[in-house]
Amino acid sequence: MPDEIRTCLLPVLSQPEDFSGSTAVILDILRASSTITTALSSGAAAVIPCQEIEEAQQLAGKLSETADSEVLLGGERMGVMIEGFDLDNSPARYPAEVVSGKQIVFTTSNGTRALKRAIQASRILIGSFLNLAAVVNELSQSSGVVYLVCAGTDGAITGEDCLCAGAIAAGLQSVSSPELTLDDATRMVVDYYQSQTSSPGGLLTAMRASQGGRNLIQRGFEEDIRLCSERDCYAVLPEYNHESGRIMLASAG
Amino acid sequence: MPDEIRTCLLPVLSQPEDFSGSTAVILDILRASSTITTALSSGAAAVIPCQEIEEAQQLAGKLSETADSEVLLGGERMGVMIEGFDLDNSPARYPAEVVSGKQIVFTTSNGTRALKRAIQASRILIGSFLNLAAVVNELSQSSGVVYLVCAGTDGAITGEDCLCAGAIAAGLQSVSSPELTLDDATRMVVDYYQSQTSSPGGLLTAMRASQGGRNLIQRGFEEDIRLCSERDCYAVLPEYNHESGRIMLASAG
Repeated sequence: MPDEIRTCLLPVLSQPEDFSGSTAVILDILRASSTITTALSSGAAAVIPCQEIEEAQQLAGKLSETADSEVLLGGERMGVMIEGFDLDNSPARYPAEVVSGKQIVFTTSNGTRALKRAIQASRILIGSFLNLAAVVNELSQSSGVVYLVCAGTDGAITGEDCLCAGAIAAGLQSVSSPELTLDDATRMVVDYYQSQTSSPGGLLTAMRASQGGRNLIQRGFEEDIRLCSERDCYAVLPEYNHESGRIMLASAG
Repeated sequence: MPDEIRTCLLPVLSQPEDFSGSTAVILDILRASSTITTALSSGAAAVIPCQEIEEAQQLAGKLSETADSEVLLGGERMGVMIEGFDLDNSPARYPAEVVSGKQIVFTTSNGTRALKRAIQASRILIGSFLNLAAVVNELSQSSGVVYLVCAGTDGAITGEDCLCAGAIAAGLQSVSSPELTLDDATRMVVDYYQSQTSSPGGLLTAMRASQGGRNLIQRGFEEDIRLCSERDCYAVLPEYNHESGRIMLASAG
């Protein structure tokens, strides 16, 4: 069991060295974390996160020449597909028939930034509601400090990431010893999640009301909120590999 | 009634220009906001916030030469009294017999930083549990955007400030129209406050468990947590005056 859970409500609220030695979980619920989880569950060979569009295009070009498996370019800017890319950032676009066996070079601003911020963590997992139980189970077997890293949107704290942080922390609390230490931000997200989900359908209502949810409704991606609010659809555990720079299924997944 | 409540969980999470035109409430619950509220309730003529110790000492020296009323130096660094100062940052040290009629030059790191960050706000109020109802009542008569500015501690979000932001937002919600918009951080602090205070004695328990509470217990100021957790002790409303640079009773107080 971990000793302590810390929640970073925005990547900038922690220093890179804070993550050293910890297990970090990257939460960009609407939609990068949910889409990466879906892609790997659909049999994608790997998701390769890139900060910049150009970097993603160059990498995809290079991989296409050398890799055995087909390469797809996925991601978004401001919620919409990037010109010349194969896929946007909707989990609905990543079924097995599209992504199975393929490598996906992927760029989204907030999720990638969160991952890079936490790069000094010993392990970096990708969490979402879709693989909630798998994340909680894996964390319950970790030790030391767990960092729940909310990606936020353009430097603002967003409710959907906090809700998932609360769900993970509440899940860990329910299986842990009373000695588990929670920082103040973690206590807050647990109360937020539990309060919002105390009535049936509460999670979807809260997700729709969150900043990320409102942005998606405005851009015509309302259905994605429902897709990303389903708990425990997939038993997969995406993990970032420091050496290869790829997100693949953790061995426990 | 205001249109919108935004909660800034740390001063750095908002840009100075974000506050423009708003009513901001500075929340440094353990203990600067509570101490300033107590001092003005005890009849202090004004509290003059200073960022730096040296700045405070120079101002106190200058005021002592020219002012009609006596001047006291108050504040803290790392929770303890500053050498050569008259008062620390405990509300218990600011009764009428000590501060009535006097000007208090006051320096604390986190609260002063929060106030300076929000300086572009049209009005800057000081909020605490001690004057909760007075703050809610005044805000209910404001218009536009209300910013609840949590001071935090040394760049970290602290539960005690979030709890008070939640109390104020919950209070405003209870007297407002359903059109009042809350940002995601405000929804979260409301749930946090309501969840923590759902059982008798819950607020004091939550305040003791918060980062600020734990710091005070460690430094031997446990009794201050109780003092700062009392709701509606004083009907005063401290307001920062942009022209004079002083915090005094608002006319409504």
